[in-house]
Amino acid sequence: MPLLDNPDIKRAALIIIGNEILTGRTQDANTQWIAERLLPRGIMLAEVRVVPDIEDKIIKAVNELRAEVDYVFTTGGIGPTHDDITAASVAKAFGVPLEINQEAYKKLEAHYGAENFTAPRKKMTMVPRGASLIPNPVSGAPGFKIENVHVMAGIPRIMQAMFDHAIEALAPGEPMRSRTVSCALAESIIAEKLTALQDRYPDIDIGSYPHFCGGVLGLSLVLRSTDETQLDRAAAELVEIVSTLGGDPQLMD
Amino acid sequence: MPLLDNPDIKRAALIIIGNEILTGRTQDANTQWIAERLLPRGIMLAEVRVVPDIEDKIIKAVNELRAEVDYVFTTGGIGPTHDDITAASVAKAFGVPLEINQEAYKKLEAHYGAENFTAPRKKMTMVPRGASLIPNPVSGAPGFKIENVHVMAGIPRIMQAMFDHAIEALAPGEPMRSRTVSCALAESIIAEKLTALQDRYPDIDIGSYPHFCGGVLGLSLVLRSTDETQLDRAAAELVEIVSTLGGDPQLMD
Repeated sequence: MPLLDNPDIKRAALIIIGNEILTGRTQDANTQWIAERLLPRGIMLAEVRVVPDIEDKIIKAVNELRAEVDYVFTTGGIGPTHDDITAASVAKAFGVPLEINQEAYKKLEAHYGAENFTAPRKKMTMVPRGASLIPNPVSGAPGFKIENVHVMAGIPRIMQAMFDHAIEALAPGEPMRSRTVSCALAESIIAEKLTALQDRYPDIDIGSYPHFCGGVLGLSLVLRSTDETQLDRAAAELVEIVSTLGGDPQLMD
Repeated sequence: MPLLDNPDIKRAALIIIGNEILTGRTQDANTQWIAERLLPRGIMLAEVRVVPDIEDKIIKAVNELRAEVDYVFTTGGIGPTHDDITAASVAKAFGVPLEINQEAYKKLEAHYGAENFTAPRKKMTMVPRGASLIPNPVSGAPGFKIENVHVMAGIPRIMQAMFDHAIEALAPGEPMRSRTVSCALAESIIAEKLTALQDRYPDIDIGSYPHFCGGVLGLSLVLRSTDETQLDRAAAELVEIVSTLGGDPQLMD
């Protein structure tokens, strides 16, 4: 069974908003960090989209994905500059006005002082009507949540603090467990036996990931399921298969 | 003008196929590598999608994006194992049969020897009807191109060799140039002057990217355009703006 068909897990989508990833200026670090924290809670990323700072593109991604998955997270575009259009775009996606959030307004006014509370800083207190704030303990300007969409900063340190707060409120799924069998076999050597193993364990998702490591081609075979008993049985069989083919299996949780 | 509205550039999309990115097992390294090589050729990534190893999801992404952009690239899912379903999914997306490619068949048969040319290895010679091969100088099994869609391996070393071959055949756009002004100003201090600068230079895309560096908040202001003369004028104005605000501007190409 493909991971995402498992009825016991929740599904999430991540929308990364910003030209800086699309131009290659910035290496995305948020996807892996978020994925790793979701999976032990039984929530799996079903899709990631990187979209530019263009309103139509943001609206389309938000509306398509919030209808498809349990939770949507967005990163980026919530600052005070002209290219930060996430809050306005999300408001349009939901068909609600963008308005000053009084709680955020008071917090940022206190943070900056009334005389320094300029228009760009006030902009950061505007969220879609009906949204609740996601606190920003690092730099003040909050993220927000509207229905199942969580809007966060793009800077990893700030995003992480927001995410850790937001995830506490989410209903978890059944934790997804994994076993990894590493070896140095070529994929084509083990492919047929792996297909047969997958057929015997339809409830387990079996992935085959070749990689170069120090110039040598290695292979990681990853079994994932919410059912640990089945997982251990399948992993034991896979270790046996690799051994029989003359591989040197290394089993890891 | 948003970068992607520039009529002189070409637009591309990248589809990353594979559960390993969505589970956080693997950090994507292909997006940045590809984006950096496209931009000097006047081709910009308009969207990136990471989708799971599920046929419907791959078909949807391929068909939506190939209609929207000039060039689509996919990475991952072209190996011999049961979870490698990219070629079959792309064939379905185009509504054509998946069939053995004679050139690939002869090449891989010679590579492995007739007696070791097993079913999983033969699977790697199957491409959608009408596709042309993208050679794989690293491990034999080729990628392919059908219309504007380029199907490549996911392992970075192999993907890179395929990409370098594929890009030679693409019509370039006008090269996208950039100037970056770095400083330590808070975004909210410069936001209004930045908006005014953007309004004066509608053909330039101005991005504002705050980041933490050694615990200190820094700011990179990036100007992009195909017009170098305008770019130099706008960059000079921006340096002046930053200086006036008491920042210490560092200008880089």
